[in-house]
Amino acid sequence: MTTITHSIDSHIQANLERSLAEISTLCAQPSVSARSEGVRECSAIVETLFQQYGLRTQIVETGGQPVVLGFLEGASPRRLMCYNHYDVQPPEPLDKWTTPPFTPTIRDGALYARGARDDKGEIVCRLAAIDAVRDAHGGTLPCSIVMVAEGEEEIGSPHMKDFVLQNLALLRCDGAIWEEGGTDESGRHRMPLGARGILAVELSVETMARDAHSGGAHILPNAAWRLVRALNTLKDGDERILIDGFYERAWPPSDLDRQLLALQPDPTEMLRAETGVKTFLGGMSGPALNKAVFNPTCTIEGITTGYQGAGFKTVIPARASAKLDFRLVMEQDPEDIFAKLRRHLDAQGFEDVKAEWLGAMWPTKAAPDDPLVVLATRAAEQVYGKPSSLIPTAGGSSPIYAFARPLKIPVITAGIGNMQNRQHAPDEFVRITDFVSGTRHVARIMEGFAGL
Amino acid sequence: MTTITHSIDSHIQANLERSLAEISTLCAQPSVSARSEGVRECSAIVETLFQQYGLRTQIVETGGQPVVLGFLEGASPRRLMCYNHYDVQPPEPLDKWTTPPFTPTIRDGALYARGARDDKGEIVCRLAAIDAVRDAHGGTLPCSIVMVAEGEEEIGSPHMKDFVLQNLALLRCDGAIWEEGGTDESGRHRMPLGARGILAVELSVETMARDAHSGGAHILPNAAWRLVRALNTLKDGDERILIDGFYERAWPPSDLDRQLLALQPDPTEMLRAETGVKTFLGGMSGPALNKAVFNPTCTIEGITTGYQGAGFKTVIPARASAKLDFRLVMEQDPEDIFAKLRRHLDAQGFEDVKAEWLGAMWPTKAAPDDPLVVLATRAAEQVYGKPSSLIPTAGGSSPIYAFARPLKIPVITAGIGNMQNRQHAPDEFVRITDFVSGTRHVARIMEGFAGL
Repeated sequence: MTTITHSIDSHIQANLERSLAEISTLCAQPSVSARSEGVRECSAIVETLFQQYGLRTQIVETGGQPVVLGFLEGASPRRLMCYNHYDVQPPEPLDKWTTPPFTPTIRDGALYARGARDDKGEIVCRLAAIDAVRDAHGGTLPCSIVMVAEGEEEIGSPHMKDFVLQNLALLRCDGAIWEEGGTDESGRHRMPLGARGILAVELSVETMARDAHSGGAHILPNAAWRLVRALNTLKDGDERILIDGFYERAWPPSDLDRQLLALQPDPTEMLRAETGVKTFLGGMSGPALNKAVFNPTCTIEGITTGYQGAGFKTVIPARASAKLDFRLVMEQDPEDIFAKLRRHLDAQGFEDVKAEWLGAMWPTKAAPDDPLVVLATRAAEQVYGKPSSLIPTAGGSSPIYAFARPLKIPVITAGIGNMQNRQHAPDEFVRITDFVSGTRHVARIMEGFAGL
Repeated sequence: MTTITHSIDSHIQANLERSLAEISTLCAQPSVSARSEGVRECSAIVETLFQQYGLRTQIVETGGQPVVLGFLEGASPRRLMCYNHYDVQPPEPLDKWTTPPFTPTIRDGALYARGARDDKGEIVCRLAAIDAVRDAHGGTLPCSIVMVAEGEEEIGSPHMKDFVLQNLALLRCDGAIWEEGGTDESGRHRMPLGARGILAVELSVETMARDAHSGGAHILPNAAWRLVRALNTLKDGDERILIDGFYERAWPPSDLDRQLLALQPDPTEMLRAETGVKTFLGGMSGPALNKAVFNPTCTIEGITTGYQGAGFKTVIPARASAKLDFRLVMEQDPEDIFAKLRRHLDAQGFEDVKAEWLGAMWPTKAAPDDPLVVLATRAAEQVYGKPSSLIPTAGGSSPIYAFARPLKIPVITAGIGNMQNRQHAPDEFVRITDFVSGTRHVARIMEGFAGL
């Protein structure tokens, strides 16, 4: 360990009480974006905190909750972005909390509160890292920083795409650390290098002015049948999506992706235990389950039509609708897929089936050999004593795309989680040792970023 | 008109006040089978009424509401059954009634009350007819009578099938007049000669222990997709049901049926106005719409699976279910169809899709040239001055099968309705002139029944 990293780690440890107090201050302020409860009040606390660490702040209104920006000029103009959010999930059910969700409490080496892990603890982690690295460098950080703390992550970041496009100059940077970093169950730094895109749509069809008696089923068009037939044209029995051109822009895994996939553990038994599934799609098991994340998907999220109560009711439904999502891989584009879906329905004779755009995120992915990825994994190995677990792409989707695509930056994760923090659930917590490790990891990335 | 029929008609007219008072007495007693409200109390009033007309009564318990039987020995052992019910639909919404539902009120030539038409008015119609014919024949009815008044018709007659099978000797008869008789909009006696059967089933499938995040859709089995695929195997795009052997026992219309179909008016415009449908199944219009009632059907009544709220939720549903009904024509058998459905699902690889029997009725149909049908239509022409409108089969289903099949009897309809009586709705009524006409019609059938 160098003198510098020794100094950084000592500073983090010496300031731990302050960090925990700051997490507690943030967590004591409810900021439930789902019902706009205390969110704006919390943004003011975040701004004050940024200022206490010597950051120049700026509040940007988005039409929803404000974004709090914090700027720090370092020795190098190379600038690292830290994206976090100060809103939290609703705390319900309240009676399942050992101590109240907005009364931060330390016990058994952990801090319990809504937001302790997701994501207020990680805001403080970044600030503590900045402070430690700056202190070790005589008061000037080697790189520059832009902190971005948004207030609507838990409701899907509805304003981030436009916010970035409207503030490209303000947000200029050369790489970013995303939220939700940390280790896996085996204590290795776990880092998905990307996320799939998503297109969410509602298909709906109306065949009559109102439901009719099923005694007329020999002549009256049934909306449920119409929808079932339309859905059935979207995918074959082998899960192959039948929309013309759907796979045109879908990249297969690269050679490096394949190497990373080969290193991942066999998820079969873990997945079986978690889901109760015996046979996965296509009879897959073992490594194939990991590789399949490169297959884009078409999911029926739900269907609603007709009578759904007890017993039966002899009706012909006049209206039927289904919610679908498509998970998209690089370089599929939700807007392109939406247009192709419409053309598919028309070509199959389902002009009467409406397709409504519900929401979208674009796929995003850092190259496994990107210098920032390499820096983050080397730093992780120093901190955690084990190689990182690099996942070519997560199965889910992320607002990372809103930053990564227009700013053309690599995005990595590092942080304070350990996959068991009960985020979104009662008794959310962050382990204090995880906070320290995560902050040391982030500090090393800040330390090395200017030299990439 | 003969002396006898003149005497019958005079008697009906002379006793009209008594009949209306009896309908009022029955209707003043709530008897809502859906919530067992006053039903048993009403059965006692029915029994007393039967006795006042000189019928020997017997109460038969069914496990649900009691059946009130009334027997009368006539000059001939040939026995005519009159099936009616003394339970009613719930009266809600109460604020839509001009006068309260259980406060029978006469205004504008009609009696308003819940049950006035459906079916308490028709119970009194049968009794008034018996009394008139008996009086015209010196105190002895030419045929014998068994009155059957059940108390669960409005909840689907769940006990009738077993009740008949367990009381075959008691119910022995040579023909029956069903409830819900009367005229159509043009004032012609309207008589469906049968009803289609029905098999109601629930298909359900479970693929996981619980819903999963749709980020795992490349590996996890989706119950909604599974159900959609299973449903899609049941019927092709031309509405042809693909279950092996489904049409084996389905009779096409007979020559007589075809003659009756040819006499029916073109329903296209009426159906368009009622349903808002522009294009009926298969592009049918005109007489084809009437004939199509001989096509058995497979209706999706409803589907429920996954997320159905606002926006979208990225879940893979673990469970999906659909309610279906099959309308069956003579001589299809719901038990046979249910077995064939199970075999179909298994053969198509859907062993995991459960099929649950929800309920069934068998198809039933009187021959257009059955002597009782001929008697009823001739009597109707005398009363209404127009030929009857004979409908080979209704599109819906009826508990008639529970009587017609084991007792091997023809069943016809005659009565007091005019298709506009708001049965099941607020301000249900029976027009007094319709009551008189319907009673004259029923009396003529009783008059002629012994001679068939």
